[in-house]
Amino acid sequence: MKRVTERRTYSYLGPAGTFTEAALDQVPEARGQEWRAVHNVGEALDDVLSGRSYAAMIAIENSIEGGVSTTQDALATLPGLRIVGEYLVQVNFVLVASPGTQLSDVQVIAAHPVAYAQCHGWLGANLPQHSHVPAASNVASAIGVLDGTLPAQAAIAPPGIVRHYDVDVLAEDIGDNKQAVTRFVLVTRTMRSPEPTGADKTSLIVELPHDHPGSLLEMLEQFSTRGINLSLIESRPIGDELGRYRFVIDADGHVSHERMADALLGIRRFSPRVVFLGSYPRADRQIVQYPERYEDDVFVEARDWLRGILSGEPED
Amino acid sequence: MKRVTERRTYSYLGPAGTFTEAALDQVPEARGQEWRAVHNVGEALDDVLSGRSYAAMIAIENSIEGGVSTTQDALATLPGLRIVGEYLVQVNFVLVASPGTQLSDVQVIAAHPVAYAQCHGWLGANLPQHSHVPAASNVASAIGVLDGTLPAQAAIAPPGIVRHYDVDVLAEDIGDNKQAVTRFVLVTRTMRSPEPTGADKTSLIVELPHDHPGSLLEMLEQFSTRGINLSLIESRPIGDELGRYRFVIDADGHVSHERMADALLGIRRFSPRVVFLGSYPRADRQIVQYPERYEDDVFVEARDWLRGILSGEPED
Amino acid sequence: MKRVTERRTYSYLGPAGTFTEAALDQVPEARGQEWRAVHNVGEALDDVLSGRSYAAMIAIENSIEGGVSTTQDALATLPGLRIVGEYLVQVNFVLVASPGTQLSDVQVIAAHPVAYAQCHGWLGANLPQHSHVPAASNVASAIGVLDGTLPAQAAIAPPGIVRHYDVDVLAEDIGDNKQAVTRFVLVTRTMRSPEPTGADKTSLIVELPHDHPGSLLEMLEQFSTRGINLSLIESRPIGDELGRYRFVIDADGHVSHERMADALLGIRRFSPRVVFLGSYPRADRQIVQYPERYEDDVFVEARDWLRGILSGEPED
Amino acid sequence: MKRVTERRTYSYLGPAGTFTEAALDQVPEARGQEWRAVHNVGEALDDVLSGRSYAAMIAIENSIEGGVSTTQDALATLPGLRIVGEYLVQVNFVLVASPGTQLSDVQVIAAHPVAYAQCHGWLGANLPQHSHVPAASNVASAIGVLDGTLPAQAAIAPPGIVRHYDVDVLAEDIGDNKQAVTRFVLVTRTMRSPEPTGADKTSLIVELPHDHPGSLLEMLEQFSTRGINLSLIESRPIGDELGRYRFVIDADGHVSHERMADALLGIRRFSPRVVFLGSYPRADRQIVQYPERYEDDVFVEARDWLRGILSGEPED
Repeated sequence: MKRVTERRTYSYLGPAGTFTEAALDQVPEARGQEWRAVHNVGEALDDVLSGRSYAAMIAIENSIEGGVSTTQDALATLPGLRIVGEYLVQVNFVLVASPGTQLSDVQVIAAHPVAYAQCHGWLGANLPQHSHVPAASNVASAIGVLDGTLPAQAAIAPPGIVRHYDVDVLAEDIGDNKQAVTRFVLVTRTMRSPEPTGADKTSLIVELPHDHPGSLLEMLEQFSTRGINLSLIESRPIGDELGRYRFVIDADGHVSHERMADALLGIRRFSPRVVFLGSYPRADRQIVQYPERYEDDVFVEARDWLRGILSGEPED
Repeated sequence: MKRVTERRTYSYLGPAGTFTEAALDQVPEARGQEWRAVHNVGEALDDVLSGRSYAAMIAIENSIEGGVSTTQDALATLPGLRIVGEYLVQVNFVLVASPGTQLSDVQVIAAHPVAYAQCHGWLGANLPQHSHVPAASNVASAIGVLDGTLPAQAAIAPPGIVRHYDVDVLAEDIGDNKQAVTRFVLVTRTMRSPEPTGADKTSLIVELPHDHPGSLLEMLEQFSTRGINLSLIESRPIGDELGRYRFVIDADGHVSHERMADALLGIRRFSPRVVFLGSYPRADRQIVQYPERYEDDVFVEARDWLRGILSGEPED
Repeated sequence: MKRVTERRTYSYLGPAGTFTEAALDQVPEARGQEWRAVHNVGEALDDVLSGRSYAAMIAIENSIEGGVSTTQDALATLPGLRIVGEYLVQVNFVLVASPGTQLSDVQVIAAHPVAYAQCHGWLGANLPQHSHVPAASNVASAIGVLDGTLPAQAAIAPPGIVRHYDVDVLAEDIGDNKQAVTRFVLVTRTMRSPEPTGADKTSLIVELPHDHPGSLLEMLEQFSTRGINLSLIESRPIGDELGRYRFVIDADGHVSHERMADALLGIRRFSPRVVFLGSYPRADRQIVQYPERYEDDVFVEARDWLRGILSGEPED
Repeated sequence: MKRVTERRTYSYLGPAGTFTEAALDQVPEARGQEWRAVHNVGEALDDVLSGRSYAAMIAIENSIEGGVSTTQDALATLPGLRIVGEYLVQVNFVLVASPGTQLSDVQVIAAHPVAYAQCHGWLGANLPQHSHVPAASNVASAIGVLDGTLPAQAAIAPPGIVRHYDVDVLAEDIGDNKQAVTRFVLVTRTMRSPEPTGADKTSLIVELPHDHPGSLLEMLEQFSTRGINLSLIESRPIGDELGRYRFVIDADGHVSHERMADALLGIRRFSPRVVFLGSYPRADRQIVQYPERYEDDVFVEARDWLRGILSGEPED
């Protein structure tokens, strides 16, 4: 009798060689499982929601470009998703071409617009006369050059491209910013947050009440009055009219901590719509520091005290 | 067989005729009970703590003089007391003397120093040449004049004095401020707060953490971020060194309301020492107004939402 | 003798037919002047900085996509620019093709990725089998279809395209969101702000001090404590490392108002780097409302009072 | 020819031997000048306002009793006064009697009510059977015992009494709190504040706008957002109705410092009535600490920057 081992499927922005694949490479549980290359974030999240995939790795923020709007907007509007992990990938680029091509042969460069923008310095210095053809992704650029569907002699691509395609590397490390990093998150339908590690973050998307000014201030106070630091705060238009925003927030700490739970209560009471995206370990594994007076036992003690008052027991 | 009806004892600053007695007169439950006249606030509270009295009526604030320090300090330091009611008494004064005395006979006036200060205008206009002998209370002044233990021909006293002593009223309504009001509270050992009426206040004494500046601001935010208005905030020195204060606070609302309970939790977590003095009906019976978003059900809904997150149930 | 009339040059994202051209159409002063079509925001701003152009019209925010990162980042880093006007353009799209093309002929659609994303609904309903070829701009898509350089049968383009190119309109009004609006600003080197109109906004880019948490809160308080409402607040990564942000801010009011000037002082003292982008009339001409206590004369009176104190003159 | 040396007059709460005299003793400039003993704070301030005296020494706060209401209310309502110095006096008491009296002879004790309250512990332990006769001041108690106008055998008085009256000291150091301190201020009509010393405080009396809640919070923010710490904040009823307060404030720093001047501007704009009582050296000579970002030059630089913007000069 044959033993069937069930394999889990992980969706990621393909094809093989992308930065997203490099992020998925960092997930121990994903090794030996099914990896499913998809064309965009929407498809990846749809895989998860429909049950086709167990999880999806998606880019959420780039140290240069900022938040990935498509991801943020998808997480804001698709219910039933949770972030369970965070991964950082160094972003760098190589210039590749069909075997035998020389740098001097290059007149047109295929590149995803974002990658193209990040190599502006190197291109200006080394290929001042080039022109640009946009490609749909960082790998599609190279494929288009190889198969001739894009009218270009070279492509900007991630370093990992060489493991998957037969290309010559004309130049390495051509990104303008050597510290560029992209932050990825692993998204599932698992509703239970991973256990707290002490180095956690909690992600939320919070819509502000639009009828009273000062509401952003009020939202931030919900965190500051509980000693919680924010590592990310990004505004995104809600999209129905100019001037209406939701905020994408990463807060230091885990929902199982009293101070975070209490802040979430405050946020929920205040916001017309708040999406809890999950509490999960930080990619940098840095232990969250906070003032002693926001310790769990301070919250527990206060609740006991209030309970005594409400029940009519004498205080001690 | 004889039926024993147990009578409750109420302590108040006596003797009969004081403003405190007028306050106790406003308490329906106190009618027909034992009224015990005492000499000062300390004695009144001691009666309650020792069980000699069921309750004590004490002055807590005067619209002209401000908070009554002795009362505030006693409530801050004596554990086991609760305010269960609030009463307002119009403060006015009469000038009284032994029967047959004329205003022109008056050279020396016996008066409690506070009462004396509040009649400054009338005395200057009508008895510019008088001198003052201090008396221990607003009624002791009249008694001293009547029995000759105070070297004065007239006394400043509350209007109620005429019901208890054989005096001639030389002048009425001699207080400088016609709106002067004293606020009294009824204090017991009952730990359970009276039921909320919609027109309630909650009294607290809060010590500020002394090692971080801005802590007063932080305390006030605990109320403002829950839509709670304060009708009283008074500082009192803690007494151990200059610059250390506790704050006497009256907040609009009842501890059984979610927003007040939540504010108390915040205060308790923050303050090294907080005394809950009770939630009780306001003397003015004015219904407390607050923004809709601080309604009880907003708090309940938020807790349900958080409970769902913590338990790993899917959000709806 | 011939009289030489000097014409001013205005740069805009071309070619003719773009939404940016529609924005420039709204500027009375630009009529009859030289209009210079450029390829991107960088080129437009470079025209202004180098003196080739008097002004540049650039997109700064889209009601659906949010802030235009390239514009925001350029304004944050290029010194010497000022916004002098704001213009709104309704964003809508048509599907165009070479004359004689039928909708049933369309298999591949050329479109700028942002425009493509905004027509997702219509395309799914009407051309479910199509595939997408990215174009460099909303007009380049149509040109590529017409001249055959893009392998597509139809293009998504702005309605204005029909005034400049010989195309058949296969479908109108194909954008998913009928309220979609793009906000444009006119940028010059003129350092003096336009006179206040009562319906003004002030644009800033503010870097937060990165070493103390709560600094976003503190920045917002600079505005709220002067009664100033913010109509835009967007975070942008500074780009040197994850977690460092600058904020793009539109505040209601004009720098020549006392309350705004005072807020700017507060911001400048607090922020390691603040770029003043200008005070200029709002596109919607809506008069700015603010509490009376933030009127100019309140500020002037306070300064007079302080001056009296500092000079040792008696107060009145 | 005779040279007339003009002597300055200093008023103080007399008679000789009071704590106020001990405070005046600490003023080097007052030595050898005319000292005028008065009966109360009102008289002392009236001396200054009328020009009879150059300055008056008055008690403003007691570490046990709190703010001296009469002083605070007088400073709040009398215009044209300035505090120019602050002095601390250790508060302690002795029990004195006519020569030859023994402790066992004492049945009635003359004492100012405040002093009496502060010796409660010692009296309970050593003279449990005594009764109390109130005196008008800490020295009037002793005088009354000596001249027989008060029906008492002993008086509670300040230690300095022995330098002025022929009394026997029956007990020393009878105050309950050995750290008790009274804070005095020297008040003049001089409008120019003493030069800053680095260890200064600024005193204000601020009325809150009564029509918007949260105004106390807003007032405190005027200080906290400029890095200014408050060493005193006391509420006093305005006196016209319950629930209306003014606040007596001591803020660390001098009005000639930019941050303090700016905070005063904010306070003045916000408050319906603010009384500037002066900037003067602290009694404890403790140098005021504050964050570097509130240094004077940060304010000056920001003003220069704003001036450039308003004048239309290019930023650098």
